[in-house]
Amino acid sequence: MIHYSRRSSLEKEKKLNIILHKVLKKIKPSTEERAKVMLLVKRVLDEIKRVAEDNNVPCTIEVVGSIAKDTWLSGDRDIDVFILFDPSFSIETIKSLGVFIAREAVTRLGGRVFERYAQHPYIEALINDFRVDIVPAFKVPSVKDMKTPVDRTPFHTRYVNSRLDSRMRDEVRLLKQFLKGIGAYGAEVKVGGFSGYLAELLVIYYGSFLRVLYSAREWKPFNTFIYIERPADLPSIQKLFKGHPLVVLDPVDPKRNAAAALTLDKLSEFISASKLFLEHPSESFFFPRRPTYTKEDLEETLATRNSHLLAIHVKCKFTSPDILWSQVYKSLGGLETLLKVHGFKVISKKAWSDEVENVVLLYELVTLKLPSVERHLGPPVPSDREEEFLKKYVGSEITISGPFIEKGRWVVYRKRRYTNAIDLIKYEYDKVRHGVQLLKCLKREFKIYADKDIFRLTDILGKDFINTLCNWLKGRIYWLNIVESKC
Amino acid sequence: MIHYSRRSSLEKEKKLNIILHKVLKKIKPSTEERAKVMLLVKRVLDEIKRVAEDNNVPCTIEVVGSIAKDTWLSGDRDIDVFILFDPSFSIETIKSLGVFIAREAVTRLGGRVFERYAQHPYIEALINDFRVDIVPAFKVPSVKDMKTPVDRTPFHTRYVNSRLDSRMRDEVRLLKQFLKGIGAYGAEVKVGGFSGYLAELLVIYYGSFLRVLYSAREWKPFNTFIYIERPADLPSIQKLFKGHPLVVLDPVDPKRNAAAALTLDKLSEFISASKLFLEHPSESFFFPRRPTYTKEDLEETLATRNSHLLAIHVKCKFTSPDILWSQVYKSLGGLETLLKVHGFKVISKKAWSDEVENVVLLYELVTLKLPSVERHLGPPVPSDREEEFLKKYVGSEITISGPFIEKGRWVVYRKRRYTNAIDLIKYEYDKVRHGVQLLKCLKREFKIYADKDIFRLTDILGKDFINTLCNWLKGRIYWLNIVESKC
Repeated sequence: MIHYSRRSSLEKEKKLNIILHKVLKKIKPSTEERAKVMLLVKRVLDEIKRVAEDNNVPCTIEVVGSIAKDTWLSGDRDIDVFILFDPSFSIETIKSLGVFIAREAVTRLGGRVFERYAQHPYIEALINDFRVDIVPAFKVPSVKDMKTPVDRTPFHTRYVNSRLDSRMRDEVRLLKQFLKGIGAYGAEVKVGGFSGYLAELLVIYYGSFLRVLYSAREWKPFNTFIYIERPADLPSIQKLFKGHPLVVLDPVDPKRNAAAALTLDKLSEFISASKLFLEHPSESFFFPRRPTYTKEDLEETLATRNSHLLAIHVKCKFTSPDILWSQVYKSLGGLETLLKVHGFKVISKKAWSDEVENVVLLYELVTLKLPSVERHLGPPVPSDREEEFLKKYVGSEITISGPFIEKGRWVVYRKRRYTNAIDLIKYEYDKVRHGVQLLKCLKREFKIYADKDIFRLTDILGKDFINTLCNWLKGRIYWLNIVESKC
Repeated sequence: MIHYSRRSSLEKEKKLNIILHKVLKKIKPSTEERAKVMLLVKRVLDEIKRVAEDNNVPCTIEVVGSIAKDTWLSGDRDIDVFILFDPSFSIETIKSLGVFIAREAVTRLGGRVFERYAQHPYIEALINDFRVDIVPAFKVPSVKDMKTPVDRTPFHTRYVNSRLDSRMRDEVRLLKQFLKGIGAYGAEVKVGGFSGYLAELLVIYYGSFLRVLYSAREWKPFNTFIYIERPADLPSIQKLFKGHPLVVLDPVDPKRNAAAALTLDKLSEFISASKLFLEHPSESFFFPRRPTYTKEDLEETLATRNSHLLAIHVKCKFTSPDILWSQVYKSLGGLETLLKVHGFKVISKKAWSDEVENVVLLYELVTLKLPSVERHLGPPVPSDREEEFLKKYVGSEITISGPFIEKGRWVVYRKRRYTNAIDLIKYEYDKVRHGVQLLKCLKREFKIYADKDIFRLTDILGKDFINTLCNWLKGRIYWLNIVESKC
């Protein structure tokens, strides 16, 4: 049980400052680490420039992202470099030139190269344990002249640098680490959390880490609209983002919501975690211990819940994790609808993937089998649809009893088409909304595991899968562990 | 399947008239039957008068009801006699005088006497196979001067007689028989159908049996308001009966809805049956064959449905069937709520009673057992109730997993208090709405039968119970049988 303490605010303030000081010491890169990173950055920039010159390619090289903004955390191993071309080039040209230059430079530096596709192709390189993304883009005079979505990034970097002083950069670091700690950091589909840029904007707007948290306690999802620079046509822009859980206008492009990737649930978790952290300040919010589980834990929790599990295992490869997870979430929802529509009550659902080729959709059900009879509600009396309903059900083979009239509506008790959830999935899986590519993989082959069969699947998929299962069926939101253990 | 025919209306009209003619021949009392009944009525009246005179009790004797209105059906065995006293008497006096006179008269006639309680005491007598109700009441100058609710009845009789000619009396007979045939005749709680008086008012208003049916097809439940005599303050009276499925103002007392006892379902059945009868005229609507079932039928239908039955058997005596059924329906709904609230899905429900001392409440369930885990929805984020929710569930013994945030709301997966429907009923039956007297009986003792145990109950309760079970689980609305077999 959580015991909400009622410490005096001064005492709390003091405690908070001590904690933030400690955290910052851990997450702020040391002079040494900084020097090492900057050296690598310089080598990469120099090499790219040299390759461009060697090949007579006119371009500008710019570091962007958290390194350029000096908001990175100690231990971060991500460097983002943009190769900027004149807008007179065609997109095709800069893509092939960019990839060529990047590949050549990385090779000269002795790194390993992976080609990636986001909105457009870029190079991901591994150099001295650092992940270096090298992205070709256009050097446009303003965001309005953007030719590809990535052209916006250098403007973000410049804007943030124009607004942050060194104190605020540390505040950003605290916010990022807090978000990491509570599992809400990252705009990728799998997480649906806060991007680094969004964290920076929040610190710019509210002034400090603590002020962001104090304010977040008051945020109302779907009803919080933040802008740093007032846009020209505020009302029409507000309309544009109706239905977004949180809106933080992008100051370099006010038609864009910098919080567009944030899901309702991650926003809610942040709001609640802010409240709890301010009530119960603890370093553990920033550095939680995440439990790891064993097969025995899984056995135990399945026995405790005494419910029914259904796992759909499919092999499927995707070009990026974002595509994978958006497809997986779509299919997860689609098959849940299928189960529900056919009367199977879904207690909870979950998806797992190794992000290589294995995807598992998981459902916890009240029951795997249903009676042969189902109650089917017909039209009210009187209505035009009565005749059709009676024609269909009086004396029909699928009618078990009825039609009767109940509460003024026709009702028939008819044969259920699927009394077994496994058969339902097996024969009807393709009748619902899916990620298109995932559906293709499902059509090729999938396997269904029910109840204890799931242990055959854990044997195949291993530790991370067991952990996901146990976190789902046994765990809770991490930072609630922190709060509990403190009290 | 029903095939809706599209016969020409002339042809249909002809067919209808032939049918009505045939039906009327069967249901209109013959001269002989009429003479026999009238003779008995005269003997009863004379005897009551004589007893009153012998004891110097000043009163008037009046025949009321369908005999007095000449709207009774061949085979009816009910005679209603009122002993009317001057309003200067006290209620207590007329009750004891009335019961005394009636009892004495019946004894002299050689009949058997049963004392009954409706709104007030009366005598039910069995004389020559006729049921004679003898009711003491006040002879008031107008309905406004009524001292007991039964004082209204003689006014009904007089009003109907003033408005019906002999053709219309036959039309009433047709409507009554039609209502009997479709199971919608009788204002008693068990049926919740049309009273004889309501049938008479409808014929007075619409003019004929067929016109009642033609009009009924257009009735909208909760939106049909009929008055024969326009009341002085129509709007305020309309307000009075908001929420009644059908309103037919009582012409002798416009503050009363003569259709107050009619349930939505019986009204709906009448509307639909009217439509179907006019489409598919058939004598069978008036004289349906009701199927009778055996234990083997029950076994077969239970196997077909493959669902779960729960029967609660209680012994309980009531002063009248109306009290019994209103209590039974209340408890039936109360325990359904209990089951639903605890996660047991109720497919359908039914009550049975022999109207002597046995009552059975029946539920058909998707499952008798539920998983140990249940999903419990908490407050939204942010809200004032978050703190309380987290205090209650973080680290609590009843928490299995969570709290998590799902779709912006806190959710916890907690231990279900009752995983077995039988235990739930056993220990929590008294936590819900009940008929007060029935609850007392339940508190004394009740037995629960599940699934095949039900056959131990059918052995005890016999044929009528089996019939009710089979009609519930295997049957349909009777007149749909008629329509099906015709096509």
